[in-house]
Amino acid sequence: MHYEEGAYRDLGWAKIDVGRPARTGTAEAVYAAGKTPEQVVEALAALRQAHPGRVAVATRCDAACEAAVLDALGDEVLVRAGVCAVGAFPEPESGPLAVVCAGTSDLPVAHEAEITALANGLDARLVADVGVAGLHRLLDKLPELREAVCVIVVAGMDGALPSVVAGLVSAPVIAVPTSVGYGAAFGGLAPLLTMLNSCSPGVTVVNIDNGFGAAMAAARILGAKAAR
Amino acid sequence: MHYEEGAYRDLGWAKIDVGRPARTGTAEAVYAAGKTPEQVVEALAALRQAHPGRVAVATRCDAACEAAVLDALGDEVLVRAGVCAVGAFPEPESGPLAVVCAGTSDLPVAHEAEITALANGLDARLVADVGVAGLHRLLDKLPELREAVCVIVVAGMDGALPSVVAGLVSAPVIAVPTSVGYGAAFGGLAPLLTMLNSCSPGVTVVNIDNGFGAAMAAARILGAKAAR
Amino acid sequence: MHYEEGAYRDLGWAKIDVGRPARTGTAEAVYAAGKTPEQVVEALAALRQAHPGRVAVATRCDAACEAAVLDALGDEVLVRAGVCAVGAFPEPESGPLAVVCAGTSDLPVAHEAEITALANGLDARLVADVGVAGLHRLLDKLPELREAVCVIVVAGMDGALPSVVAGLVSAPVIAVPTSVGYGAAFGGLAPLLTMLNSCSPGVTVVNIDNGFGAAMAAARILGAKAAR
Amino acid sequence: MHYEEGAYRDLGWAKIDVGRPARTGTAEAVYAAGKTPEQVVEALAALRQAHPGRVAVATRCDAACEAAVLDALGDEVLVRAGVCAVGAFPEPESGPLAVVCAGTSDLPVAHEAEITALANGLDARLVADVGVAGLHRLLDKLPELREAVCVIVVAGMDGALPSVVAGLVSAPVIAVPTSVGYGAAFGGLAPLLTMLNSCSPGVTVVNIDNGFGAAMAAARILGAKAAR
Amino acid sequence: MHYEEGAYRDLGWAKIDVGRPARTGTAEAVYAAGKTPEQVVEALAALRQAHPGRVAVATRCDAACEAAVLDALGDEVLVRAGVCAVGAFPEPESGPLAVVCAGTSDLPVAHEAEITALANGLDARLVADVGVAGLHRLLDKLPELREAVCVIVVAGMDGALPSVVAGLVSAPVIAVPTSVGYGAAFGGLAPLLTMLNSCSPGVTVVNIDNGFGAAMAAARILGAKAAR
Amino acid sequence: MHYEEGAYRDLGWAKIDVGRPARTGTAEAVYAAGKTPEQVVEALAALRQAHPGRVAVATRCDAACEAAVLDALGDEVLVRAGVCAVGAFPEPESGPLAVVCAGTSDLPVAHEAEITALANGLDARLVADVGVAGLHRLLDKLPELREAVCVIVVAGMDGALPSVVAGLVSAPVIAVPTSVGYGAAFGGLAPLLTMLNSCSPGVTVVNIDNGFGAAMAAARILGAKAAR
Amino acid sequence: MHYEEGAYRDLGWAKIDVGRPARTGTAEAVYAAGKTPEQVVEALAALRQAHPGRVAVATRCDAACEAAVLDALGDEVLVRAGVCAVGAFPEPESGPLAVVCAGTSDLPVAHEAEITALANGLDARLVADVGVAGLHRLLDKLPELREAVCVIVVAGMDGALPSVVAGLVSAPVIAVPTSVGYGAAFGGLAPLLTMLNSCSPGVTVVNIDNGFGAAMAAARILGAKAAR
Amino acid sequence: MHYEEGAYRDLGWAKIDVGRPARTGTAEAVYAAGKTPEQVVEALAALRQAHPGRVAVATRCDAACEAAVLDALGDEVLVRAGVCAVGAFPEPESGPLAVVCAGTSDLPVAHEAEITALANGLDARLVADVGVAGLHRLLDKLPELREAVCVIVVAGMDGALPSVVAGLVSAPVIAVPTSVGYGAAFGGLAPLLTMLNSCSPGVTVVNIDNGFGAAMAAARILGAKAAR
Repeated sequence: MHYEEGAYRDLGWAKIDVGRPARTGTAEAVYAAGKTPEQVVEALAALRQAHPGRVAVATRCDAACEAAVLDALGDEVLVRAGVCAVGAFPEPESGPLAVVCAGTSDLPVAHEAEITALANGLDARLVADVGVAGLHRLLDKLPELREAVCVIVVAGMDGALPSVVAGLVSAPVIAVPTSVGYGAAFGGLAPLLTMLNSCSPGVTVVNIDNGFGAAMAAARILGAKAAR
Repeated sequence: MHYEEGAYRDLGWAKIDVGRPARTGTAEAVYAAGKTPEQVVEALAALRQAHPGRVAVATRCDAACEAAVLDALGDEVLVRAGVCAVGAFPEPESGPLAVVCAGTSDLPVAHEAEITALANGLDARLVADVGVAGLHRLLDKLPELREAVCVIVVAGMDGALPSVVAGLVSAPVIAVPTSVGYGAAFGGLAPLLTMLNSCSPGVTVVNIDNGFGAAMAAARILGAKAAR
Repeated sequence: MHYEEGAYRDLGWAKIDVGRPARTGTAEAVYAAGKTPEQVVEALAALRQAHPGRVAVATRCDAACEAAVLDALGDEVLVRAGVCAVGAFPEPESGPLAVVCAGTSDLPVAHEAEITALANGLDARLVADVGVAGLHRLLDKLPELREAVCVIVVAGMDGALPSVVAGLVSAPVIAVPTSVGYGAAFGGLAPLLTMLNSCSPGVTVVNIDNGFGAAMAAARILGAKAAR
Repeated sequence: MHYEEGAYRDLGWAKIDVGRPARTGTAEAVYAAGKTPEQVVEALAALRQAHPGRVAVATRCDAACEAAVLDALGDEVLVRAGVCAVGAFPEPESGPLAVVCAGTSDLPVAHEAEITALANGLDARLVADVGVAGLHRLLDKLPELREAVCVIVVAGMDGALPSVVAGLVSAPVIAVPTSVGYGAAFGGLAPLLTMLNSCSPGVTVVNIDNGFGAAMAAARILGAKAAR
Repeated sequence: MHYEEGAYRDLGWAKIDVGRPARTGTAEAVYAAGKTPEQVVEALAALRQAHPGRVAVATRCDAACEAAVLDALGDEVLVRAGVCAVGAFPEPESGPLAVVCAGTSDLPVAHEAEITALANGLDARLVADVGVAGLHRLLDKLPELREAVCVIVVAGMDGALPSVVAGLVSAPVIAVPTSVGYGAAFGGLAPLLTMLNSCSPGVTVVNIDNGFGAAMAAARILGAKAAR
Repeated sequence: MHYEEGAYRDLGWAKIDVGRPARTGTAEAVYAAGKTPEQVVEALAALRQAHPGRVAVATRCDAACEAAVLDALGDEVLVRAGVCAVGAFPEPESGPLAVVCAGTSDLPVAHEAEITALANGLDARLVADVGVAGLHRLLDKLPELREAVCVIVVAGMDGALPSVVAGLVSAPVIAVPTSVGYGAAFGGLAPLLTMLNSCSPGVTVVNIDNGFGAAMAAARILGAKAAR
Repeated sequence: MHYEEGAYRDLGWAKIDVGRPARTGTAEAVYAAGKTPEQVVEALAALRQAHPGRVAVATRCDAACEAAVLDALGDEVLVRAGVCAVGAFPEPESGPLAVVCAGTSDLPVAHEAEITALANGLDARLVADVGVAGLHRLLDKLPELREAVCVIVVAGMDGALPSVVAGLVSAPVIAVPTSVGYGAAFGGLAPLLTMLNSCSPGVTVVNIDNGFGAAMAAARILGAKAAR
Repeated sequence: MHYEEGAYRDLGWAKIDVGRPARTGTAEAVYAAGKTPEQVVEALAALRQAHPGRVAVATRCDAACEAAVLDALGDEVLVRAGVCAVGAFPEPESGPLAVVCAGTSDLPVAHEAEITALANGLDARLVADVGVAGLHRLLDKLPELREAVCVIVVAGMDGALPSVVAGLVSAPVIAVPTSVGYGAAFGGLAPLLTMLNSCSPGVTVVNIDNGFGAAMAAARILGAKAAR
């Protein structure tokens, strides 16, 4: 099935943007927060029907939403870190994408990035718990980081890891601040500001806890489109 | 001349990181704010000597600093938008990089990105004054935007342009908020938050007014594309 | 029944401002947050008694409050999106009022605006899910938007929609930021700032999630139009 | 001269949106901040040429810019409160628009609103120095306020005036916070928040010090378009 | 019983400042938040024992804490608005203290002020629901306000009421912002800033929701000390 | 000369509230920031004419404004700390008002309070440089502080002094945060928050650097004391 | 058992930094927030195994986590204030470390500091409830404070205590702001800013509620003293 | 000369706290901002007279102030980085204090720390330009860092350096955020938050740009007092 750029499917309460792959190379995803489980299921089903060859993804699902998706669409559903991914995952076509996280408390956000990337055909590989308080853990992983053609770095608290990583590799570095921390972390504001002010040139930043957005940026960078 | 990863040249008050190209693919640049004109000249000269084949770049130069650089190193100096670039610009090797700006007041930041990109061998092409208050101006430029392999979008005030652009192209979109605006723009905070919360997936963001950083991210991305 | 400008009814714990229609053209509404269900019921009943020809409205009702209102006043009660409206809705007298929302998660705020507008005799018409990530959905609705004599635009996340809409229509545009989003959306601060800094001249803004206030502003505007 | 909706004139560094009147009913204005005096003059001249029957307006002009405009286009130039308006002012066609300000220090912002409104054919009438610390001054002006079909209220410091005014009139109330004040006024943040939280329903708000935007909103509300 | 200025009673986990009346004229109160019900009971009992002639007060009590206090000390306990007051209330000795609140949702904070004032021997008199959206309700109460020798004004949302009141009376005006409101009220920040920037000279401000503090300031102003 | 409550004198650009003494007990003052020197002179002259027996006060005067006032009204003008006071100072009638400041850098704000108080007939007495880093300096002044019937405490940086003072005296304590400090003082935000959160009950707060407002509050309080 | 600086134990989801003592003198601690109880138990067990002679510590444990640790490792577990400490506490080797807190509501944070310090071999001694509202309580404890070789000061609300303490002792003062307070305390921001702006030179600050961090800083300091 | 703890010298406008050395081990310093050059000279002279054996220090001096100090007290004056130090510097008695800075733009703050430390008898040693973008520069200096008994780390922008340093050394680490950077650095807020949220335990933080405070904290830590 192929849709023109300006196509969409009108569900009444929503207009599924089925022309998005033609415009941006990736399918629309469902942001589940603020939607009923029924709405999430209906939107995922519409996406699956429109793009049978793609994995349909919903993010920020709560338990009720996950249960509804599994109940309705469960044959090919993978659920992790609040993501419901419907459809068989494609063989990765890109070079390796490293998803690095500073601490174990950052793992949920890293998983959101990892699964979104896998669903979009990227070869995501997780590198966990390599925060700057023990640099040697990071330096041990340097060969893997340098092999990657794109690096997502997930960190809360001081958010210092992307600056260090970007000083060591030449690949694009996408920084994801997390809301891990307390007090003057102010819900992720602290690492967000750290990353925006990185002293290592070329770091770019996405929203707090936005593993999904980081993976979508990686998809733009690594591109699945044949045309490139 | 080639340097190992860990090489640096010690000027006493500064340690020029001449090993950076071996690690990150791009040379160190000089952040002129807070430095004396003499320091900027000395650092640029050291960079030129270390990497004769690369353009040495200083950003955020004020008039006194620009004059000092022109006086000391003026044979191959280009000065624009607070950037002093020393050395002959290379032939662009990458696919086109679009540098889009929303309003004419955003031009200085766009120029910082454009010159930095050119100095790093990217084929930067400026698209000016296509803000969302008059969408047709942007839509007229859609063919150029879609031809680009990476897009930098510079916008102040509401910062809405990157969301619209990212809904229309598949290339990576790097958003640069500017401090253009007044009142509740709070020195660029407003467009920064807009861009971090973009409803178009895959937008990444750099610091306010950081045209330099956006170009360096593009250099990482376009290098990454070559490596794919 | 008619009240002078300075009339009010004293309930002891509250002073119902029954003279407000004579001063401002619209009746007082009950802000239910922080009141007991009994207080909300008593205030609504007092408003109904004072202005039998008007719909009495309470906003921000929780489930217990809604139940109490339905139980006590349920003959003519409509409950939706936290609004309890008591009384038969009037025939709309104004030209069409478009209530546009960017995403489906913004619907509750849009519904608050829609119902408040209907209760005040405006011809509110909902246009859902036309965010800027897929411009064509919005452009498809352009005829409806241009027919409207006033437009309310509800958006969370980047809050970019009002700028785009205001560049396409000549009617007044009232922007409502919502608390939809996470991380650096900071509870609606991001779209609020976006809207205050709109590059399209003539956008005005109400408080975050304040669908009620937007509808009341529309009532002032459409009344003003009648008077012109 | 008539332009289609999608027309614009390309100056190279700027794209004058000459189709804007066809879309929004009002002409583009020039935001002078961040532009050179030459750019402002060129843009104003282009606007005058495109729409000879309209007043061309530039806001936020500094002294150098004002001098350049007077020098180049001075036959019909009015300069006040940082606004340069080029062209003969039209006869007002709308009902009266009250521009109310709380203190004399708010006058520059009120003047920006007043002149912009007059340039757009509105019957703007200034009511100065009626802050809530002396209510009787405001109450004395109540007949004038109630005669107005739209009210712009300009206030700094506590920003309390719009709430009081909106409790007394039925016309639309557009609130403009100013940066007048010190300390915890935080550059206008205090009155901005006050106005967004007005206890009088139906107040809408524009950016801090944005007299221009308030007038443009009034133009949308009062409409000069014959078609309405 | 009389204590010297430097006296205190050491409970191990707490040091009851029994010398405070000698220094400041009022007894220490118990801030219950973050304390166990047992700690609150123990502290109240110690205060009662130290100053049998005074009412012992605990603020910010939750239901469990209130129950524990009633259970342990219930003979003379009054519980309202999170305040537990132990001991017979004294005959008021001061002139009237008006406790004015803008809306009914502000009543809990007003009650905290009222009870604290009564417990300290002040003649507190509540004036409810006189917000500025309906000025006549306030003006009707002007005689009562002018009779007061001190006025506490409690308001959320726009926080405009203290400015209006202070323009009408000569007594000291203590403004109490409340966390009533939503969105850009930011938990009471909006009315706090409003009140700090009051255009009526001589308004002073206490912390958000701090009815207790306002009453204590009134006690200082009205003074129970015979020596004055 | 005596004016009714609702009297004012209309200067066209300003409405001098000459009825204010009848309502609030103190005369209007001129806030010079944002006014021309000519406007300040005209307003002061009008105030002098209206209330010959009172000192007319303008605050926040810059050098040009001070010169203009001295030139036009210099016979009885006192200029200090940005205040121009016109008229012979009355004999103090109140009990002593202590104006305490933490550091010498806070002196300008303390002087603004002192002069305003003297102009309003209060017996202001300055106690300088008694910050909490050297408690003994403060304790040495305890007799003077305890003799005062009202205490104004001016402090920047940590703003800790009012809490300490209020724990030692029974008089009303009005805290004035100053913008003295750097970095995380954020222009006075730090001491403002400190003072709003004082652990000593009964401290009230005015705006940052608002010595004028503190003195006006003291005038209300000392009037109130007289009325008790 | 001894580990080299660069040693770590890889648990798959975590990399226990067993080389940290060789580098920093103290062992890694487990930050339990965002981890499952199983993960906390596994990490504590790994730490115990790696460093049998040290107490393994987890902070920010909730009830479920505490139960799991007690169940799995309970022979030598001490649980208090969200800290689980596993292993026999060493004999203190340092001079006395005073842990001072302003109010009883600050006790949990003080306990976190106290236990962490004891687990690291410091001679921690608690001084409770000596806030500045009653200075004499603090002055009574001056001998104990001056005997201490390091002082941790824990305070919420106005956060004034560290400034006063640092003016009285010569030992290092580590200030810990707490989230105790309401309204404009903004979750501990108020005392944090107070402490960063202390007028007593030499105060250093850790994150809000970070008793753990304060104790670790004390461990570095008291180690440093030993080395002197 | 020796002073008791409670001694001070009263200059009228200032009270020089000459008892401070007896209480805190270090002399009072003069904060020059907001003082006249004459006041700074007078205070420095008083300090010199009181403590002839100590270096008297004024910080935040502007050019006029520096000139006045040199003119009046120039025999033994050292001026650098806004610090005027009067008196012969003592022989360092402590172990080495490393003053590390991330970038050359941070040097002025590092110099303020360095000179203050030297003036207080500490053996300060500067390590410049070792930011985390080029880790090898830092790792090369590891022996010097590990030799230090206390480390001050000065950094702007992302403020990541203290976390990395604290993971490598066991000495106390005092972090100083600087206002170097732009945009979302928000005048040093970004590195301040980074440092408060350091993932390396035991980092403490002083105010933005507060090199003086960091040195005074080091003085407390390293102690010049014989008594220890």
